[in-house]
Amino acid sequence: MSDIEIAQRAKMKPIIGLAAEKFGIPAEHLDPYGHYKAKLSLEYVDSLSHQAQEGKLVLVTAISPTPAGEGKTTTTVGLGDALNRIGKKTIICLREPSLGPCFGMKGGAAGGGYSQVVPMEDINLHFTGDFHAIAVAHNLLSAMIDNHINHGNALDIDPRRIKWKRVVDMNDRALREITVGQGGPANGYLREDGFDIVVASEVMAILCLATNRADLKERLGRIVIGYKTDKVTPVYASDLKAHGAMAALLKDAIKPNIVQTLENNIALVHGGPFANIAHGCNSVTATKTALKLADYTITEAGFGADLGAEKFLNIKCRSAKLAPSAVVLVATVRALKYHGGVDRIHLNQENLEAVEKGFENLERHITNVTKNYQLPCVVCINHFTYDTDAETDMIIEKCSDLGVKCIVSKHWAEGGAGAEALANEVVSMVEGSTISPDNLNLLYPDNMPIWNKIETIATKLYGASEIVASDKVKGEIAELQEKYGDLPICMAKTQMSFSTNPSLKGAPTGHSVEISSVKLEHGAGFIVAIAGNMMTMPGLPKTPTAEKIDIDDNGVITGLF
Amino acid sequence: MSDIEIAQRAKMKPIIGLAAEKFGIPAEHLDPYGHYKAKLSLEYVDSLSHQAQEGKLVLVTAISPTPAGEGKTTTTVGLGDALNRIGKKTIICLREPSLGPCFGMKGGAAGGGYSQVVPMEDINLHFTGDFHAIAVAHNLLSAMIDNHINHGNALDIDPRRIKWKRVVDMNDRALREITVGQGGPANGYLREDGFDIVVASEVMAILCLATNRADLKERLGRIVIGYKTDKVTPVYASDLKAHGAMAALLKDAIKPNIVQTLENNIALVHGGPFANIAHGCNSVTATKTALKLADYTITEAGFGADLGAEKFLNIKCRSAKLAPSAVVLVATVRALKYHGGVDRIHLNQENLEAVEKGFENLERHITNVTKNYQLPCVVCINHFTYDTDAETDMIIEKCSDLGVKCIVSKHWAEGGAGAEALANEVVSMVEGSTISPDNLNLLYPDNMPIWNKIETIATKLYGASEIVASDKVKGEIAELQEKYGDLPICMAKTQMSFSTNPSLKGAPTGHSVEISSVKLEHGAGFIVAIAGNMMTMPGLPKTPTAEKIDIDDNGVITGLF
Repeated sequence: MSDIEIAQRAKMKPIIGLAAEKFGIPAEHLDPYGHYKAKLSLEYVDSLSHQAQEGKLVLVTAISPTPAGEGKTTTTVGLGDALNRIGKKTIICLREPSLGPCFGMKGGAAGGGYSQVVPMEDINLHFTGDFHAIAVAHNLLSAMIDNHINHGNALDIDPRRIKWKRVVDMNDRALREITVGQGGPANGYLREDGFDIVVASEVMAILCLATNRADLKERLGRIVIGYKTDKVTPVYASDLKAHGAMAALLKDAIKPNIVQTLENNIALVHGGPFANIAHGCNSVTATKTALKLADYTITEAGFGADLGAEKFLNIKCRSAKLAPSAVVLVATVRALKYHGGVDRIHLNQENLEAVEKGFENLERHITNVTKNYQLPCVVCINHFTYDTDAETDMIIEKCSDLGVKCIVSKHWAEGGAGAEALANEVVSMVEGSTISPDNLNLLYPDNMPIWNKIETIATKLYGASEIVASDKVKGEIAELQEKYGDLPICMAKTQMSFSTNPSLKGAPTGHSVEISSVKLEHGAGFIVAIAGNMMTMPGLPKTPTAEKIDIDDNGVITGLF
Repeated sequence: MSDIEIAQRAKMKPIIGLAAEKFGIPAEHLDPYGHYKAKLSLEYVDSLSHQAQEGKLVLVTAISPTPAGEGKTTTTVGLGDALNRIGKKTIICLREPSLGPCFGMKGGAAGGGYSQVVPMEDINLHFTGDFHAIAVAHNLLSAMIDNHINHGNALDIDPRRIKWKRVVDMNDRALREITVGQGGPANGYLREDGFDIVVASEVMAILCLATNRADLKERLGRIVIGYKTDKVTPVYASDLKAHGAMAALLKDAIKPNIVQTLENNIALVHGGPFANIAHGCNSVTATKTALKLADYTITEAGFGADLGAEKFLNIKCRSAKLAPSAVVLVATVRALKYHGGVDRIHLNQENLEAVEKGFENLERHITNVTKNYQLPCVVCINHFTYDTDAETDMIIEKCSDLGVKCIVSKHWAEGGAGAEALANEVVSMVEGSTISPDNLNLLYPDNMPIWNKIETIATKLYGASEIVASDKVKGEIAELQEKYGDLPICMAKTQMSFSTNPSLKGAPTGHSVEISSVKLEHGAGFIVAIAGNMMTMPGLPKTPTAEKIDIDDNGVITGLF
């Protein structure tokens, strides 16, 4: 059965009742969206902050992925269900899927097989409208910028130095670089512009890092949209008086969404910043809420541990004073073979040599987690039906040589029951863990210079020997250093490799990481450093998934996966 | 008190209970969106179609408006509440507000004073996400067009003859005319494009005219996105295999939304096609549902009767086999003065001469309704506090001379109680009315040639002596005539005047109506005839309303009106 067929057979419970049953959440603090989705009121979220209870946080991250992804979400769901099965009150915290990939190549992002969150179609299509609210808030600011210039430009915005683009929740390459304001005076001033996908919007990052409404609005107000004609004076969203309306548009989007897994356990699915250009983690609000309610909170961070775990720790945990008690590193046999040099169409055939060779990618990620951050770590092999015992045994043994446990987990095929061994290992790690926000090893201190922060990430995690940049970029970094030197770095790098070259698999060393540009995201509170080329607007493939998506006369959807 | 302050003091009832109490709608057929908004299941809507009950339909339309509008929505709400007060089971059917005007100049569109639908902030901001779903469905098709060309253009689409633009729910003049595909081969092919506001999307018109899911998908599939390089062969959305995914994206948007008035009466607020470029009426699904449930269904159509009522009758009623039993024509003393030559800042001062002169605009609308369509008609003066008795008496008398009753209605200040006289008159009109879909006088038959249809509208309703068009446009009309000659016309004309000149007030005669372009909306099932210049993307004013909209730390919104 396909993911959507499994999801459509789910025996969902009404979410209001389920939230009361599992965690005593009062109905009046839940805004239902249909019968199986709801939003938690911020009043309830606030009320929890006074509770003593503080659950344990577990991060699910992964090796450098194949283009299909290695099942972080699936593993997060499976592990959550397994922990609940063995009697640990657990909530999983996921990111919301983006429509772009859903219609493009990757498909939905609500887990897979028997480890999914449901209602799958709703979560993948629109959900509770958060991304749409973010898109409109973003585009309102865009419209107000051009409108301000059109009506006399009292703020003296340099139209050539506007950094704030427009967004749409679609893979639409034709919109990457455009010219706006054509057609004469009635349509404003001509300038170059472009669209990013919604998940790349700074508003998305802000929503995910904001701790309450006041913080949200303040962060929106301090967005730097560009510079004045003196080239250096920043123009803020608050200068345009846009932040109040933007925050009003986000009035519901800021509330965490609550849904359930196929096994009727609670999932908070909230926020979804792009893991390349942004920090790739679900919202701080959702994570903190889960920690107050549950004994165990399982969350994921986008792409491999070089990107996802790094930004989870150095951006999200730093900003929100969080710390994971343990890390689950998801690997697949097929991804190891991929890193071992096997092409994508032969990944289903046993190849011990390739597994052995590809292990170097996993090893680098293990070392990064255990040495650099000194976090307890378990490797989870997300089991595929064509994996052979010889292959998985080899990985287990090689992990053991590194002093790390490796568990083959069959949650995709069996749901929570298939992940009980993983869950037991996680419990034992967490119970032995002394990691707390106070003793968490971050990779760099706030006051390390920007250049050195980037260098630290590249050399310590990526295995690079150096970072390089043009004089222009170096100059920009020096300018940012003056005013914003204390901000953390949001690395934007291909997820396919430790290097900036997507085809360089395994665990490359001695490479140069070129920083091609830097971008201040002042509202989000970080500096994006773009290593190599990064797309902030994907394109559709020759035969997009959209062509296969359909709905019948009774409203039953097919072709989503 | 401002509209939003009144709305925030509303004593709303939980909508699920209210729907059951008022019309016996079973809870399982309602998808809640929070506690005060819900969507009706299509299964329930379908189940009603077998019921014998057929309520009476009343259309609320208006004179040619001032830029602020004359209160059609407010009157629809007030009349609905008044009918319920005098014991008639009534549902009102409204259009959903667009975010663009909300942040621009006009503000929200959920009624005013003590005649509003609530929750006002939600209805004005995002509501249940219908417009966002429409935007994404539209933009998916846009992305699939450029993607198809990028990947080899197997359908041989002429990039210069693409008629399908992109949409955003924002007043953003900079996006009216743009160039997409800049930046080199990775970004596709360069071409001119533009954005319309979402309410101008053909997808919006389709959603509002579709009778069920099958009809929706079929209409989406037959959208003509442009032509092949032979210049004449249309390319359909179904050729791009986009319609299934588009229909899936509209899975919830097609369900009617149910909310309440300040007086806890039921309102269906669903769909919101632009009244200039599209047909300006709420959804057929909502209207038909209301007719099955209630004795009286009150609905409105955008702008003055020359546009709104005309398209309501000749497009919506024709397509959906509906007929209004009576028409309420909303006028304001200030609008009469405006048509009588008073400038906008002096409209609050008594000016009998101007009222008398401006009456000619109202008279033309009355005549159009009573003579051309032979519909029972009452004039409702939507009372403003500074209207004088002398002014209103004059209007009443002049209406009486035309054989039409005119009622001063104070629903803005008093809610339903203020509109009881209007309600009683409506009841007496409806009870005496023999209008039915079978005997409804439409302005033109299906088989009248396109040119003559447009001419009929212009000469019979607008007082024009002729329509004119360039040879190019005449050629396009002739081409459309061959294949699509039976479709009705969707006139796109300024709402400010019976003519194409917005500053020509009153009731001009003898003017020429220039048809500047025509556009096939094949999925919606009409041909748009653009008379003069029409914007399909508004701009923001120098000081947009957005600057005043705010939200406090507790989530209370201010500045919406």
